[in-house]
Formats: sequence, C-alpha cells, structure tokens
Amino acid sequence: MSYTEIGYEVSERIATITLNRPQKLNAFTHVMRGEIIAALDEAEADDDVRAVIVTGAGRAFCAGADLSAGEDTFNSESNGVRAAAGRELGEIDGVPRDGGGTVALRLAAMRKPVVGAINGAAVGVGVTMTLPMDIRIAAESARFGFVFTRRGLLPEAASSWFLPRVVGISQAMEWAATGRIFDSAEALSGRLVSRVVADDELLETARSICREIADNTSGVSVAVTRQLLWGMLSADSPWEAHRLDSQGITVLGAGADAAEGVGSFLAKRPPEFPLRVSEDYPGFMPDWPARPEGV
Amino acid sequence: MSYTEIGYEVSERIATITLNRPQKLNAFTHVMRGEIIAALDEAEADDDVRAVIVTGAGRAFCAGADLSAGEDTFNSESNGVRAAAGRELGEIDGVPRDGGGTVALRLAAMRKPVVGAINGAAVGVGVTMTLPMDIRIAAESARFGFVFTRRGLLPEAASSWFLPRVVGISQAMEWAATGRIFDSAEALSGRLVSRVVADDELLETARSICREIADNTSGVSVAVTRQLLWGMLSADSPWEAHRLDSQGITVLGAGADAAEGVGSFLAKRPPEFPLRVSEDYPGFMPDWPARPEGV
Amino acid sequence: MSYTEIGYEVSERIATITLNRPQKLNAFTHVMRGEIIAALDEAEADDDVRAVIVTGAGRAFCAGADLSAGEDTFNSESNGVRAAAGRELGEIDGVPRDGGGTVALRLAAMRKPVVGAINGAAVGVGVTMTLPMDIRIAAESARFGFVFTRRGLLPEAASSWFLPRVVGISQAMEWAATGRIFDSAEALSGRLVSRVVADDELLETARSICREIADNTSGVSVAVTRQLLWGMLSADSPWEAHRLDSQGITVLGAGADAAEGVGSFLAKRPPEFPLRVSEDYPGFMPDWPARPEGV
Repeated sequence: MSYTEIGYEVSERIATITLNRPQKLNAFTHVMRGEIIAALDEAEADDDVRAVIVTGAGRAFCAGADLSAGEDTFNSESNGVRAAAGRELGEIDGVPRDGGGTVALRLAAMRKPVVGAINGAAVGVGVTMTLPMDIRIAAESARFGFVFTRRGLLPEAASSWFLPRVVGISQAMEWAATGRIFDSAEALSGRLVSRVVADDELLETARSICREIADNTSGVSVAVTRQLLWGMLSADSPWEAHRLDSQGITVLGAGADAAEGVGSFLAKRPPEFPLRVSEDYPGFMPDWPARPEGV
Repeated sequence: MSYTEIGYEVSERIATITLNRPQKLNAFTHVMRGEIIAALDEAEADDDVRAVIVTGAGRAFCAGADLSAGEDTFNSESNGVRAAAGRELGEIDGVPRDGGGTVALRLAAMRKPVVGAINGAAVGVGVTMTLPMDIRIAAESARFGFVFTRRGLLPEAASSWFLPRVVGISQAMEWAATGRIFDSAEALSGRLVSRVVADDELLETARSICREIADNTSGVSVAVTRQLLWGMLSADSPWEAHRLDSQGITVLGAGADAAEGVGSFLAKRPPEFPLRVSEDYPGFMPDWPARPEGV
Repeated sequence: MSYTEIGYEVSERIATITLNRPQKLNAFTHVMRGEIIAALDEAEADDDVRAVIVTGAGRAFCAGADLSAGEDTFNSESNGVRAAAGRELGEIDGVPRDGGGTVALRLAAMRKPVVGAINGAAVGVGVTMTLPMDIRIAAESARFGFVFTRRGLLPEAASSWFLPRVVGISQAMEWAATGRIFDSAEALSGRLVSRVVADDELLETARSICREIADNTSGVSVAVTRQLLWGMLSADSPWEAHRLDSQGITVLGAGADAAEGVGSFLAKRPPEFPLRVSEDYPGFMPDWPARPEGV
C-alpha cells in the first residue's frame, strides 16, 4: 500500500509505522487515522512481520488532533470535515464513532506485539493511542499530556478503560484531572513507559526488543499470549483462563511449534518455528475485545 | 451548614474538609460519618468548588473507629449506639450497612477530584476512607495501618474492592494480612501515596495540586473524566469506553467549554470555561458506582 | 501424609512446602502437582497452621515442566503419561484440564496466606504457580522466565489472568512476549517480587513475615480478608464489597475475635484469638474463584 501521512517499512521481521507530518508535529487527522489502521492490517497479514513499532518523524511523536479548524475542531455539527469523517466511521448509539477509539480498538485486537517508541511530544490522542500498545519506551526529550480537561473535552480513544489498567487509577486521575504536560522522567516513575533512553538510541532500543521476540519465539505462541493476557483483563474469574489454557496446552502442545520449541531448547540450538500466524492461529481463542451486545 | 466533628472551608475554589476531634486523634464516629457525607454533598453542589481536600486537625489524620465502647464497639447486638446508627443507615441483605462504606461510596460517586492530605496516623477506617480519593499525599510523620486482622475484623469501607486496584493485590495482601503499622516511606514505595512531603508543606502541596486543576481545566470535563476513569474499572470491554467517548466527543465537542478550551490554547491565554457542573454535566454519562440488582 | 516429591513441615504455626527433586531442579511432574495440592489441603485443614511458605530444595525453585519426554512432552495424543494425567484431572470443554491450573486455582481458594520464597530458577510453571500466592520474595540468585513463547506454548496455570493483575499488563506482555530469563533485580523493579534478600536470608525473611501474621492477627479475619481482597478482583462494583463488609462487620463484630482484638489492643497486651478457621469461617462469604457456568 501507499501512504501519505505515515511511513511503513519492514525489515528484520519488524514493521515500523512512522507518523509522518513532521511540519505539523504529526498532528492526527482523519487520513492518518485510516492509514494507521491500514498499516496495522498490513502488518497483521504479513507472516514476515513478527512485531510492530510505532514512532514519529521529526521532533514530535504526535501533538494531538489537528486544530486547524480552531474552536470548531471537535464540533461535528458545524465542522464539515469532522462530520464527514464521522459518517465514514459509522455510528454507535446514534452518534459518530470516536476516531481515536477506532485506532485503539484495532491495536487492542492485534495478534502481534506493538512497541511505542515515543520520540517527542505525545499529547492528546498522541498519547492515548499508545495505551493499547504492549510496551512504551521514550526518548529523554519526550513530553506527554492527557490535556483533554484543558480543552473542554474528555479522555478519548478508550483511554478511560486503558489508562487506569496501565498506570493505576491514582496516577491516571492525577494526569487526567490536571491535564498537565510532563516529561519522560515522570512518565517512567508513573509507569507510563518502561524505559527512557537517549534520543538517538530510541529506535535501536525498540528494535532490540522486537528482535528479542522475533529471534526466539513462536509467532503463534506470541499471538495467543497477547490475546490471552489482554483478554483476561475482561474476565472475572481465573477459571476462564484455566478453560482456555486447557485448550491451549492440548492444541499447541501437540503442534509443530511445541515440538520445535522443546526440541531446540534441549538441543541448545536456535529455534525455527514452522507455524504461521495467518494460517495457524488456533480456533479455540475468542476474539478480544468483544463488542458488547447492542453496541 | 454547621458541623461539629469536622471543619469545612472554601477558598481559591478548593473545599477543605478537616476531621476535627484532635483530642481523640480524630477517631471516626457516626456523627463524623454523616458530616463527611454532608460536606461532600455541599462541595459537590457548589459550582465555586473545583476540588476537595480531606485532612485531619492536630497530629493524626484519623486513628480509626472510636473504641470508647471497648470490646463491644463493633457489636450491633449489644452496642446501642452502633445498633441505632445501623438503623439510621438502613440495611443491606438484612443487616445494618457498614458506615465506612457509606463514606467510600459517596466519595466514589463524586464529580469533583478529591485529594487526601494525610497529616498523621491513618489507621483502620482512617486509611480505608482515603482509597476512593483520587490522589493521596502524606506528611513525613504520617503512619498507616490496615489493622482489621489485628482486631478480629475485616477490611471495611469497600476497601477490599479499592485497595488491590490502588496498590496491587500483592501489596494489598501484605498490608492487610499482617495488619502492620507502616510509615510514609513504605506507603510511597507501595504506591498508597504519590508523594511524601515535609509536615509543614503538606497542605500547601495539596492546594497546589488543586489549583493546577482549578486554574487550567473545565469543571465539566474533570467531572466526566473522573466518572469515566473510575467507572471503566467496572467495565469488561474497552468497547464500553468507546461507546461513551463517542457520545462525549459529540456532546462536549460541540459545547462551549471545548470552544473555549481550544480557543484559549490557540490564543495562548488562560481559559475561562463557562459550563457549570451543577447544570451542564452531560446526560449520556451513567452513574457510577452502580448499585447491583438486589442490593 | 507422606510425600515423595515435596517436603511438608510445620513449625511456629507455619507450614513449609518444599519442592524436592533437587537433582532435576525440582522440575514439575504430575506427582508433584498432586502432592502440592494435597499439602495445601493439609495446611488448610490444620488450625495450628496460620501461614504457608512454598520454596524449593537445592539451587532451583522449580525449573518448569519435566521435559524428559522430549518434543513429545506436551502432546497428550502421543505422550501416555500426559494423557493419563489428563484423564485423572478430568476434562474441561472436552480436553484434559491443565495441570498447572489445578494448582493455581487451589492456591487461589486458600483461606491462609501463602508466601513464595523463590530460592533459585523459577521458570515456566515454576513461576506461574507463584502468581496466586499473596507475597513473593526472592533470593539474590533467583532467576525467572515466562518462557512459554520460546517453547511454542502459551502461559498456563491461569497466569494470563493473574500476571497482569500482579505486575500490570505492560510488564506482563514484555516478559511473556520475549520469554526472556531475568534476574531478581528485574523481578523487583517489575513488582513480581516485593523483596530481594541474600540467599541465606531468604527462608528466615519468609518466616518473619509469616510470624508477623501468626503472632498478631485473627486466623478467621485473615481468611476472610484473603478471600475478600482476591475475590473483589472479580467484582465490578464496590457495592459488592459494601454488601459483604456489612455482613462481615455484623457477624465478626459480634464475635469472640473482635472482642479479643479490641480488648487486647486497649489493654496493650498480645492477643489470643479463640476462633478457628476450620469451624468459624463465616457462612456469608462466597467461594472464590467461582467456577463459571458451563465450565
């Protein structure tokens, strides 16, 4: 595919999605929204891709929604672009679906791990879109802000669901209620990111995490693991995990990747897993996140 | 209103509730219980209040239940005061409602952020009542204890629901199973409080957090944000957040606070948000926490 | 009872379960699985036991599943031992129950606190079995690995439910997706363990935590507290905690342990709690974790 507001590149079995409107601090648009989802679909379908990195071009990661429509930006009654985008996205309960949420829900459903490499300002939807990613790392000069309360809005992109689960309810409330801009050290101590590295080491650090996955693990196992761990956040009882585990040990345990995984471990050689996510993802796994009835 | 066991004061758009039985280390009584709830109602209804601080007079925050009835303190069969209080609170499943829980559930339902400024001993209900607050900060000399297992009781005030969500299940279990008294450093490393400051800087620190909110944010946005973030702890799927976000962006995005929030940001001037929580809290928001059927 | 692959010993009101196949790095077998559950049953039934420690003999805690069947290890179609074990465990949805999950669910249901004293390698089921324990502490030389993705498998023992609740979803995903082996310092910073101590201080540290519980608290209160805190992870609304608290304060508050707990505190003497978990565990408490319908 060809993209206009993002870059998409695959190497070393890693797909890199680069938000690419550097002159606008990679401000989020309806076009960018669709391209991110298309690129995630492309990475998902490509068995040569084992992990995905999302980063930004230039000095920002993503400065939030493009505010070029001014005070009218979030008004779908008077802002024609927004209203048209809403019609394209479809409705939920009689109103246009939130665009950021469509990205967040697509990320949540991924069968490949996603690493956010936050190179600069990540504000508004620029930070909420990273919450369904598995791992977030930041450059020293990165800045963050859940600024919605300062704009008369609310935390979107399903971040009210994700943020307290990622950083805890108290940290989530402090950042969301104040709307403050904070630096990478505060992001680290508040567990929004797991590592802060020098700006010029950010991408290589993200790639090394992805290579650690690609070189050592079964793609089908990682896909099942990702969907299980996130999916069990939706499960009340550990019995639901036990039920799926029992299927998983039975199905995967009799499969070619388990034979290769145990065999290569015992032989002390690197594994070569034969199964492919596109064809061998097991049928016992439910889809997550489930769309509730009536939604 | 006039209170006898608490203080209530509003300045700089911040309401301060001060537990005020210093000669009894602010031990919790049925009167204090009712006054805390009344003061929260008062703060909620007052559009000049943007945030609430709860603190204690004298050297304690709250030393727990008043034990002046001795071994009989928690026995509603033989302790007349407790039995009468129970009748006043109403019953749930045929027994008197737990008094601490009525405070916790009122705090949970607040549409304004609440900061616990823990100035000294916070023990038993003195600490569990702080868990539904958004932010807890402590003075260096503060002490904490979930002492229920040492009294032959159980963690009340719905703390079995709140504590693991605030500090994680392992830390929660260690504090609750041992019933130990611990200091502010342990509270910080265990994430019960987000900051520890010198005793004489505690209130000013709490006020500075509240001013950061009052000076920069929309009250309606903060109200919606608070109810969304806490409320989504009750939601299994991020689709439930997406559903509410879509309403929120549509309703708030067309509102006067979004126009002012974006407009003031683009003009680089302080915002003056026109909407009021008392009248403009949007109708699409569900009430949280929901009372389950049959309860 | 007499055990062959574990040790079981009670002293100072603490039961210690020692995984005991040191020549095999305490690799997990079907026999060990059954013995761990039997020992937990024994500790649960013995009113002289107030807390349980699980540790390993020799230099490992538990190196994971015994791989002596090679590539066939997890294949219940071709591995006769595994198939027979599966038949003994029963089925869930038409497949053999996962053995590690039976241990995890038994641990989750305990009415006594469990401390994992991780003395060396804890890999695969060797680490996932520790997640339903209340407290995990590690020796400096301990090593950890959620290696399932490297073996072509998936995180079992209901760990997809437990791990994100213990360490957060991002840390859980990083460890589970990479399958990396990590040391005790990483386990501490990632909140998998609450303390790291010198190897020769590990057991004494675990015992001191257990003594702190045994010397100061009511066994019935700790049992109720443990089941409440874990159980409320399954509850959407804090109202469910309020409902149980109200029963708890009424029933326990009128009981002999509350009288002793308050009385000994006011008299500044050590408590002697008369109630026994085996007979006095209150009837209002639901069983957790609940087996969902159809499972």
